[in-house]
Amino acid sequence: MGKSRRLSAVGEFGWLKKLLPRLYWPSALRPHLCIGPGDDAGALRITPGRVLVATTDTLVEGIHFEHKWMSPRDLGHKLLAVNLSDLAAMGRVKPLAVLVTVSMPGDTLVDSLNNFYQGLRGCAQRWKIGFLGGDTVGSRGSWTVSATVLGEAHPNELIQRGGAKAGDLIAVIGPLGLATAGLEIVQSGARRAPWMAPLITALCRPQPLLDSAQYLSPSRGVTSLIDASDGLEASVKLLSECSGLGAELQLSHIPVSRALDRWARIRKRNPLSYIVPGGEDYALIFTVRSKDWPMLHSRLPQAKMIGRMVPKGHGCTALSNGQRISLKNYGYAHFHAS
Amino acid sequence: MGKSRRLSAVGEFGWLKKLLPRLYWPSALRPHLCIGPGDDAGALRITPGRVLVATTDTLVEGIHFEHKWMSPRDLGHKLLAVNLSDLAAMGRVKPLAVLVTVSMPGDTLVDSLNNFYQGLRGCAQRWKIGFLGGDTVGSRGSWTVSATVLGEAHPNELIQRGGAKAGDLIAVIGPLGLATAGLEIVQSGARRAPWMAPLITALCRPQPLLDSAQYLSPSRGVTSLIDASDGLEASVKLLSECSGLGAELQLSHIPVSRALDRWARIRKRNPLSYIVPGGEDYALIFTVRSKDWPMLHSRLPQAKMIGRMVPKGHGCTALSNGQRISLKNYGYAHFHAS
Repeated sequence: MGKSRRLSAVGEFGWLKKLLPRLYWPSALRPHLCIGPGDDAGALRITPGRVLVATTDTLVEGIHFEHKWMSPRDLGHKLLAVNLSDLAAMGRVKPLAVLVTVSMPGDTLVDSLNNFYQGLRGCAQRWKIGFLGGDTVGSRGSWTVSATVLGEAHPNELIQRGGAKAGDLIAVIGPLGLATAGLEIVQSGARRAPWMAPLITALCRPQPLLDSAQYLSPSRGVTSLIDASDGLEASVKLLSECSGLGAELQLSHIPVSRALDRWARIRKRNPLSYIVPGGEDYALIFTVRSKDWPMLHSRLPQAKMIGRMVPKGHGCTALSNGQRISLKNYGYAHFHAS
Repeated sequence: MGKSRRLSAVGEFGWLKKLLPRLYWPSALRPHLCIGPGDDAGALRITPGRVLVATTDTLVEGIHFEHKWMSPRDLGHKLLAVNLSDLAAMGRVKPLAVLVTVSMPGDTLVDSLNNFYQGLRGCAQRWKIGFLGGDTVGSRGSWTVSATVLGEAHPNELIQRGGAKAGDLIAVIGPLGLATAGLEIVQSGARRAPWMAPLITALCRPQPLLDSAQYLSPSRGVTSLIDASDGLEASVKLLSECSGLGAELQLSHIPVSRALDRWARIRKRNPLSYIVPGGEDYALIFTVRSKDWPMLHSRLPQAKMIGRMVPKGHGCTALSNGQRISLKNYGYAHFHAS
């Protein structure tokens, strides 16, 4: 491998695969370590019976948002929401506090920064979490906002990406493909109609599914869990890889919202072309032992079964009208060559 | 006040003063809250007898560093070191783990990113802290790197900014003014001589004073504590404001390193003109009851007494050759109008 490879050629996922095994965990801390990097959140055993769950996520102007279609208030909300989604993706986690870092140019209007914090505050109040600290610094031109969210959980309640077994069912709860359609709407400058609201809301004001996540526990047969922020395809592939398995999706089982269906018709596209690569959706994707599915589904009727885990040799495939399609590419990644 | 004020006109400190009282702490969390935003780090009571201490700090290309004078490896080291300095600025804190966020353009060399993580890893190994998570995202052009560091402490051992009493002595431990001189050297493009190493090291590879901080505890008479990252002047003013006091510095007592003295001579400047506004120095500034100073000083001989706290009405002043100078302006702030 050449010395001069660039990040865009390796990709975020490719680079992380190389990085993760080399990250440092001192032996003195290993008893503390419950979950290290590589999952939606990390977990540190602080006291017997409770772990601290921590995650960090960043939104960058020009990559994740543009001011022309994302208000500072929505940005503040979304920054916290996407971090809370990472806590939800670990199962029954109680969010506690947030640290926020804001980097923006000196000519930013004070009102914009105030509105950003109002959006953050609204989301913090909704989930009863407090501000523990932060950093506000200048930048040379664009906004970069970053948050670290801390929560607590019982160590036996946490659900990682790698616990699925062959035969487990794959289920999803929450919106899929909506944010991608919403992005297309705001980028196209199309006139916004009331029926588009769910698509734009999915993009600009996503809701973390912490309430639903309260039902997802190992004792209810849930074996692995991830959020769909990288897209359905990438998320299912990550669950499969981490569990050492393959996956088979039933495309006809994937829920398509009315707004997405309507937008896809206008664009003359199959709604699945929004859902499968997706990205920026904060649905939860999980696997559950098939015998536990009926009981879990009775508690969480909005969850939909969309496939099952299969032995590794089968790879990750999707069944569509009797045809088997391979899921080859990660759907959503930064550092694409521009 | 106009609606269209810009951040550069208000300044980072001015804005934070307005923001902090409005940050949200839900009543459900108040029993958990030990220290909220506005100090070097926040602290959350997780279990009786122990608090989680958390802090976050960001380094932005074009504001805090330029690639031409800061290698990726030094940047990784410094990112962790400045966060650890914030833990040291809370007293006897044991660092545990770090979450890292990196935003950089897709054409970044993979080697640069690897070197950044090697710098981080070296500092993490030195202080035996582990990687708990992170986020790696694209950017439109410049690097923004951010870390959140978690540590633990006994709640009674933490030292805030606001605990000083009139008559307490002000002391400093660690380098002052060196990073400012180092910045001048790297920006001027001056040929680097071996004797300049301490100045450039202070800028590019600062050392967090966690070991010294182990001696700074309320039981040893330490009443307030801050790091000097905003400069000596701003840091002393923050201690004073938070404690509702004034301060009187003895400029002749302030330690001047040989390297700084030599560089200042070359530039025909008073070394104090580097030290007093300063910035990016990771010294610790603390106040101590005068009766406890001799014992503390015998344990920490490298600490220097540089002044004392006085009643608020006296303001913040410095004595120099018998003259009294007012300390009016914060030394180091982002968002200066450019």
